[in-house]
Amino acid sequence: MMQGLTGKKIVIIGLGLIGGSLAKALKSRSYVCNIVAVGRDETVLQQALADGCINAYSMDVQSTCMDADIIVLAVPVLAIAGHLQQLATTMPEHAVLTDVASVKQAVVDAVMAEFGRIPPNFVPGHPIAGSEQSGYAAALPDLFVGRKTILTPLAQTATSASSLVREMWEAAGAEVLEMEVDRHDEVLAATSHLPHLLAFALVDTLSQQGESEEIFRYAAGGFRDFTRIASSDPVMWRDIFLTNGKATVAILDKYMEDLQSLRSALLQGDAEYLFTTFSRAKLSRDRFLRQLQQHNPKS
Amino acid sequence: MMQGLTGKKIVIIGLGLIGGSLAKALKSRSYVCNIVAVGRDETVLQQALADGCINAYSMDVQSTCMDADIIVLAVPVLAIAGHLQQLATTMPEHAVLTDVASVKQAVVDAVMAEFGRIPPNFVPGHPIAGSEQSGYAAALPDLFVGRKTILTPLAQTATSASSLVREMWEAAGAEVLEMEVDRHDEVLAATSHLPHLLAFALVDTLSQQGESEEIFRYAAGGFRDFTRIASSDPVMWRDIFLTNGKATVAILDKYMEDLQSLRSALLQGDAEYLFTTFSRAKLSRDRFLRQLQQHNPKS
Repeated sequence: MMQGLTGKKIVIIGLGLIGGSLAKALKSRSYVCNIVAVGRDETVLQQALADGCINAYSMDVQSTCMDADIIVLAVPVLAIAGHLQQLATTMPEHAVLTDVASVKQAVVDAVMAEFGRIPPNFVPGHPIAGSEQSGYAAALPDLFVGRKTILTPLAQTATSASSLVREMWEAAGAEVLEMEVDRHDEVLAATSHLPHLLAFALVDTLSQQGESEEIFRYAAGGFRDFTRIASSDPVMWRDIFLTNGKATVAILDKYMEDLQSLRSALLQGDAEYLFTTFSRAKLSRDRFLRQLQQHNPKS
Repeated sequence: MMQGLTGKKIVIIGLGLIGGSLAKALKSRSYVCNIVAVGRDETVLQQALADGCINAYSMDVQSTCMDADIIVLAVPVLAIAGHLQQLATTMPEHAVLTDVASVKQAVVDAVMAEFGRIPPNFVPGHPIAGSEQSGYAAALPDLFVGRKTILTPLAQTATSASSLVREMWEAAGAEVLEMEVDRHDEVLAATSHLPHLLAFALVDTLSQQGESEEIFRYAAGGFRDFTRIASSDPVMWRDIFLTNGKATVAILDKYMEDLQSLRSALLQGDAEYLFTTFSRAKLSRDRFLRQLQQHNPKS
């Protein structure tokens, strides 16, 4: 059953960086759908209405979703459960439910807990896009262009539901891929969650040094890039780490082992070990960069 | 005694990213000085001559430096000693000697070892500029614009020598500051050497995971920025860590303590600790960014 986006009522719960960018992406590409945003901050919702990227807004999840075709949960992971509780009793049977969280098992667990089952129209999703900025003010219609969105449909998920969510993200400019829930959480722990943890930790460590102002004064461009992600939203990241702690600790432990080996090499003046490690890292990183540029020329 | 750059013979030993950029910076700003490059790769030297950013080149340090006014050592730290050995016997008394290394105590020690004293015309220097690219091909005439160059003159250093080196870096577009040798090595360990170590280690850890190609495939823009510095020159960084290992390990140990605390918070699901740490880091990083932009609008 192909459904198509046209004429659909899409409810976006949470009009932050991701939710706002999705609304802007769909509207800027002239998709004729009825986008209704649900949020807590009416100033933001009014702004989005004035910007023309939503058709209407509401502060109430239940009444808004009663006739929804697609419901997109675009709130921090730990805020999802509360919304699911409201949706469990009022969401129409045909409506497709999806989310944008950076962790997927935790969302699946929350759906199971609130619905008592996995509804066939539930499609876990994660657009791998974003920046260190957050909130509707940072939303961009091209945020997803050339980026990947990962869907992690479950055994119970209806193909028609997956297709509709896929169509929505492709309409927003993303390349859509499917992956197992576990694998998603593992890959993201390595490529996103761990780097964020390391960046937060580095800035925090340095800021606690004596004369940290002076220390930061001599930091140059490399440091700015390296710590960019430490400017990310603390609530969103707290939630991600609380819900993907296990996978993050697994890769963190491997990383700390590697750091210990490098520390020993520093103390022993082991030139060969340092050179080999740095050369291998440079090779991998240069290869990664070529791969990224091949798939996404705007990077 | 003010000397002034005009008419001076400046010998740049090592025409890589920093040496090449210095030559381009001075020539592009029409400083009438005689820039002679010493290097090992004649193709590069010929290219620089064709580019008009040097007046002549040579493969021989001793003959070239016999009538030099300023000698700039722009080679990796551990390659400095070999050149100093040659300079110790042939360098004219009036010539000012400086370097561009990211560590300063090691260079001071090498000078002491080769010269048997600290010559009054020796001015340790470090332009805090660069990128993950290396070599003459990556050299830019504006690399130092809006960047800081730190000089760490010693008790024995003549004011006239410091002034001339300062004038040269200001002519290249840099803001010149002075600092104690120890403090320089400590500050750079925190803001540059440690971040590079962390980035090299992260890319290396991930590249050793099974299906690392797939892992990198899903990495997005934040990861690219975070690991940019892992593409830096392995020889240069091996030398930096071999010569600033002590200061780097000192700050690395503090960092690993912080990582251990975050690891515990992940395992215990300590929401408060995570939120507080991330918020504090975000505040510091945002403040650092404002400071950087204030002093260097191009950042």
